[in-house]
Amino acid sequence: MRNILLEIEYDGTAYAGWQVQNASKTGRGPKGSVTVQSTLCAALDNILGEKVMLTGSGRTDAGVHAQAQAANFHTASSIPVRGLQKALNSALPPDIRITACREVPEDFHARYSAKWKLYRYTILNSPIQSALRRHYVFYCDYPLDVGRMSREASALKGTHDFSSFHAAEAKRESSVRTVRRISIAKKGDTVTIEIEANGFLKNMVRTIAGTLIDIGRGRFPAGSMRRILAAKDRKAAGPTAPPQGLCLVKVWY
Amino acid sequence: MRNILLEIEYDGTAYAGWQVQNASKTGRGPKGSVTVQSTLCAALDNILGEKVMLTGSGRTDAGVHAQAQAANFHTASSIPVRGLQKALNSALPPDIRITACREVPEDFHARYSAKWKLYRYTILNSPIQSALRRHYVFYCDYPLDVGRMSREASALKGTHDFSSFHAAEAKRESSVRTVRRISIAKKGDTVTIEIEANGFLKNMVRTIAGTLIDIGRGRFPAGSMRRILAAKDRKAAGPTAPPQGLCLVKVWY
Repeated sequence: MRNILLEIEYDGTAYAGWQVQNASKTGRGPKGSVTVQSTLCAALDNILGEKVMLTGSGRTDAGVHAQAQAANFHTASSIPVRGLQKALNSALPPDIRITACREVPEDFHARYSAKWKLYRYTILNSPIQSALRRHYVFYCDYPLDVGRMSREASALKGTHDFSSFHAAEAKRESSVRTVRRISIAKKGDTVTIEIEANGFLKNMVRTIAGTLIDIGRGRFPAGSMRRILAAKDRKAAGPTAPPQGLCLVKVWY
Repeated sequence: MRNILLEIEYDGTAYAGWQVQNASKTGRGPKGSVTVQSTLCAALDNILGEKVMLTGSGRTDAGVHAQAQAANFHTASSIPVRGLQKALNSALPPDIRITACREVPEDFHARYSAKWKLYRYTILNSPIQSALRRHYVFYCDYPLDVGRMSREASALKGTHDFSSFHAAEAKRESSVRTVRRISIAKKGDTVTIEIEANGFLKNMVRTIAGTLIDIGRGRFPAGSMRRILAAKDRKAAGPTAPPQGLCLVKVWY
């Protein structure tokens, strides 16, 4: 069996996420919701003439985007990777593009082999929402203190138990993750939060973003991020920021 | 009567343009196509309780976007401009936003008072189309020689008869326009063409873009732009580039 890795760019606006909760590896959820994974599996099944199990580097929520999601599958087919990429891009809707396709070692696993991932959360900090960027930013019309957001964010660097930023309903595994970079940048009316970690808990980036936005608005005093992290309690953190501002930018293997 | 100027950002993807050809000033075309203008007029009529005639700085084609279209209308209403802007942004769909609203002198006319306009044409020059940017770029997978495009584009600077870049069906008015700036920039895989002129003929930017793309691909020899311009014949130029790459960026009054 060959093991094939896909790099995938997608516009998550129209999808119920990468994969619905409790879905099988074909990505088809209990109510038949359309996911990025189910759309890819349908195209792969058609092209390869076999049922494919597609493993993503991780799940993204409904409305979340990816510049470079990674996913692998095993196949008995001998189709060349360039031909497969072309066939997939012809078969897929335009909001999903295969940007790379290559063979990887038999034991490569898109999720377990991932070393680091980069997520970007984009905030439009302006009095008026943007017509052109509405699907790709979270619009916030309160003035944000970006310096303060940066100072507080630095408390998250390193290896910590991120329970305070973990969706309450999904606590089976360990909540310890390592953040190697968190940076906040402002360019014009756009504020971006970039987080690189060895893994992300469910809703972790969106909850960090929601908390940082509240910090930038002055809703939390200085030193709050350290206290919120130490609380290991989801209720200590701010709200979960909406999905459309979030994008999976890169996965390192 | 007060004269009100709106600045409008819109995502043209879902619209039959700013205004359909042969439409009345209410923007409603012969087949009732939905245009940006008709959508704005419906919202204005509702808020002001009067039939409003809305004059844009110019038309944009179906699928073309605007960061800052300008349009004015006269009204007997005494509604404050801030309240009107807020009411419009509540009533309008999210792909149309009023970014500014102010009172202007009685004789101000969004089209005739315009001094200069800036259009940007965006090309994604990459082997794979982008899922995230598909509605806002023209995707071109042939390598483009941007230096050559720049050198040839400079022939268009100044005051010329732009008949070669004028949609064949629409030749009632003079084809003489003044281009005060045309510049081509490459950043990563994105090539942008910016053109500032005192006015634009129908399809002028898209035909210049289509011709420059053909020049960048090596389909025309050096010195072609000068010869195409001198020909005053639409057949001498390259194809009309598709609408989604085009955006009206600014109108100067």
